[in-house]
Amino acid sequence: MFFEGSEKKVELITEPTLGSLRSLGRPFWTDIVALAKAEIISVISNEQCDAYLLSESSLFVWDKRLVIITCGLSTLVDSLIAVMDHIGIVNVAFVSYQRKNEYLAHLQASTFTDDISLLRQQIPGNACRIGHLDSHHHFIFTSAKVAQLAATDTTSELLMYHISGQLAQYLISDNQSEEKICQLLQLDTLFVGFDYDCHLFSPLGFSVNGIKGDRYFTIHITPQEQSSYVSVETNVDVNSAVNPIAAQLLALLKPISWDAIGFNTPIIASAKPKNICLAHCAYPIEQDYQVHFGHFQQLGSEVLSPEFM
Amino acid sequence: MFFEGSEKKVELITEPTLGSLRSLGRPFWTDIVALAKAEIISVISNEQCDAYLLSESSLFVWDKRLVIITCGLSTLVDSLIAVMDHIGIVNVAFVSYQRKNEYLAHLQASTFTDDISLLRQQIPGNACRIGHLDSHHHFIFTSAKVAQLAATDTTSELLMYHISGQLAQYLISDNQSEEKICQLLQLDTLFVGFDYDCHLFSPLGFSVNGIKGDRYFTIHITPQEQSSYVSVETNVDVNSAVNPIAAQLLALLKPISWDAIGFNTPIIASAKPKNICLAHCAYPIEQDYQVHFGHFQQLGSEVLSPEFM
Repeated sequence: MFFEGSEKKVELITEPTLGSLRSLGRPFWTDIVALAKAEIISVISNEQCDAYLLSESSLFVWDKRLVIITCGLSTLVDSLIAVMDHIGIVNVAFVSYQRKNEYLAHLQASTFTDDISLLRQQIPGNACRIGHLDSHHHFIFTSAKVAQLAATDTTSELLMYHISGQLAQYLISDNQSEEKICQLLQLDTLFVGFDYDCHLFSPLGFSVNGIKGDRYFTIHITPQEQSSYVSVETNVDVNSAVNPIAAQLLALLKPISWDAIGFNTPIIASAKPKNICLAHCAYPIEQDYQVHFGHFQQLGSEVLSPEFM
Repeated sequence: MFFEGSEKKVELITEPTLGSLRSLGRPFWTDIVALAKAEIISVISNEQCDAYLLSESSLFVWDKRLVIITCGLSTLVDSLIAVMDHIGIVNVAFVSYQRKNEYLAHLQASTFTDDISLLRQQIPGNACRIGHLDSHHHFIFTSAKVAQLAATDTTSELLMYHISGQLAQYLISDNQSEEKICQLLQLDTLFVGFDYDCHLFSPLGFSVNGIKGDRYFTIHITPQEQSSYVSVETNVDVNSAVNPIAAQLLALLKPISWDAIGFNTPIIASAKPKNICLAHCAYPIEQDYQVHFGHFQQLGSEVLSPEFM
């Protein structure tokens, strides 16, 4: 009953002179995600964005920007290289490629080191690891070329491990429904006015994409006991005093530990569950591009149970 | 500058009717450790024990007991199977096989799951994982057959990650000496009256074995920055009020985090560095055989530095 929830992520911004990425159409993106061993399950669109729900997470396509997130044993670097081949490196204004350390790294088709040696054959860039090898850590590659970003161009990632409580119990119960999960996640109040598209996987797992204008969010839940994982990614402000999305989700999902990553946005500590920040850092990729990372853990000593094998 | 310090460990007790394991002699043990991709560097002996210092950790041989600890990319399960083949399964009174999760698991020749499927072809046993996959965790296999142990038959393991301070700095400096390291580790006061045998590895790394009667200790230091690791293993009481060995070593090596594992002995929390116990458990392998596990972390939020790749 193990599923590798930990994700790989690509973000790519094109040069203004290139035509729209959206006009490449669904057959093109079907082929691209197939290279990562993923399939398109469904799509929702608005005037600015196409949001594809994948068998392994999500793909968002704007005219000039692309975000792909894939989990499991996906080979996302292959998708990225195919996109860059297609549009031409000269039309890439910025690209980043991220990997979270996996629960079972030895099952992956490649390491991050392998991936960046492929990428660097295409495009120069910088890469680093944040966090110790024996703890939660993230790898990130960013192209040497960095697009000028608006001040509102921020991304937040909230990655939660070992969820607990009523919602966590529901997510491993029989007879779940998409509607009930959306209701328990309070999506309507957290992401007001968003269109969304969700999918309940068999035997377990839940994904939802939401869009509103150029804003997006995506939540992926791997609820399996012993390796549960929930990721939330959005360009909406998750730290707003009026609508503290990150704090609300933490209070709902009650993870034992979590990572918070902010691109050009700081990380605000949450009050519930009571926690400590075990490690953190903030560092600039380029002059105006700041990465913030924090790893948090619930206070109190967790009583472990042996997992028999 | 990475070295995999995380260890695999075998402990084997023979039936009283079997002849002495020591009498098998150095050539036999040379072949056995070669199966794990290790070499004997040196040996010290007393009336009860032969303590071999290995290129990848240590081997202790008593008349009726064996402890082998190997690090790096060693394949210790192959050594264990060869020993059992040689002495005969019927002469095995008890065996345990442990693996700590590795820093870079994908480089290992096998997983713990692979290892136990080999072992179970030879001898029935129980296996479990303690600790979450995304945090420090330990795997342990124990034979279904459990020897009757004396109350004083205890083992303590103290595994320290990301050491800091004066001693940690010395261990990555030029012109180190074995004498100075032993002095900084205060071995003479921590392990009074022990004979010991140490080795300074090139470019970095330090091992020491100590014996006194049937008591032993071994310390292995992988001081490489970003992945430093120190393991201490002994059948001496490390929690004694008169000589609190574990507390002294923690105060000297100032790790960011550590695991404490006690077999038939509880784990006592230490005051320095100030810390919290993030997770713990105690569970019985058999009626009289208790495993205690605790994972501790220094209080205070560590400021991480990106590790460029």
